[in-house]
Amino acid sequence: MAEMPDARAIDSAGDREALRLWLRLYRPVSVIERELRLRFQKSFGVSLSRFDAMAALDRAEDGLLMGELSQRLLVTNGNVTGLIGRLVDDGLATRTTEASDRRSARVALTPAGRKAFADMATAHAEWTDEILGGLPPELTDNLTAELEALMGALRLNRNGDRT
Amino acid sequence: MAEMPDARAIDSAGDREALRLWLRLYRPVSVIERELRLRFQKSFGVSLSRFDAMAALDRAEDGLLMGELSQRLLVTNGNVTGLIGRLVDDGLATRTTEASDRRSARVALTPAGRKAFADMATAHAEWTDEILGGLPPELTDNLTAELEALMGALRLNRNGDRT
Repeated sequence: MAEMPDARAIDSAGDREALRLWLRLYRPVSVIERELRLRFQKSFGVSLSRFDAMAALDRAEDGLLMGELSQRLLVTNGNVTGLIGRLVDDGLATRTTEASDRRSARVALTPAGRKAFADMATAHAEWTDEILGGLPPELTDNLTAELEALMGALRLNRNGDRT
Repeated sequence: MAEMPDARAIDSAGDREALRLWLRLYRPVSVIERELRLRFQKSFGVSLSRFDAMAALDRAEDGLLMGELSQRLLVTNGNVTGLIGRLVDDGLATRTTEASDRRSARVALTPAGRKAFADMATAHAEWTDEILGGLPPELTDNLTAELEALMGALRLNRNGDRT
C-alpha cells in the first residue's frame, strides 16, 4: 500500500460533486455494457473487446499499426496481440510485418472481416436503440451535447502519475 | 455466427440517436476508468475490481452473500470467488459458510479491510475531482440529474434474450 494520498479535504463540495457525477456516469455504462456483452456472446459468440477492435479496424481504410490499435482501444499491446491473433486465425484480419521492424505489424480487416463486422454493427445499433431508444428526445439531445462537452473538459493524466 | 438480427432499418433516426448517445456515454467512462485503473495500480497495487468489491462490502454492515455481491458488481460468481479469496488471504475480508449450505457464503470486510477501503476511497474521491472537477458547475449539475433520469429509463433485458 504505497504512496498514500495527501490528506486533502475529501469532503469538500467539489470532491463530492465530481464523485457523484462519476458514479452517475459509471453505473448506466456498466449495466449497458454488461447487456451488450451478453447479447454479443449469445448472438455472435464473440466478446465486446473483439467487436470494439473490429470497429476500430473497420474505420481505418488501410488498417492500423498494433500500437495505434492499442491506443484507440485504451488497452495494452499484450491484450490486443491475442485478440488479433484470433481474428487472423478466423480469417477476419491480416497482420503484415515489415521485415525491418517486427514491432510495426499492421493489422487490417479482410473482406470477410468487414462483412462480419457489418453484421455485428447492425445488431449493435439495434440493441442500443432497444436499450436507449425510449428516452424523451430532449433528454437524449441534452445528454449527447453535454457528454461531448464533458469529454472535452476532462483533465486526464495519461501516464497515471499523481500531480 | 448464429441468429442474425432482423433486417430492421438500422439507419432510422432513432437508431442513430441512441447509438450516438451510447458512444458519447461510453467514451468518457472508458478513459476515466482506464485512468483510475492506472492510479489504483500505481498507488495501492490493486485492481479497480477489487476496489469496487470492497466498496460494495463497505456499504453492507453485515456483509453480503456471494450471490448478492456478484449481482451488485454485475459480474459472474466465478470472477468474484477468486477476488474474495485474495481479500481473505490478505486479512481484509472474512468468508463464513453455513454448514448446511456451502453456496450461501457470507463475505464481510474485517476492520483492516474497512481501513484499507477508507484510504482507497479518499484517493478515489480526490482523483475523480482532479479529472472531473474542472467542469462548469451547471454542466455538472445538469449531467448528474440527466444521468439519473437516464438510469431510470433504460430498457434492460437482463437475461440477454433478444426481443
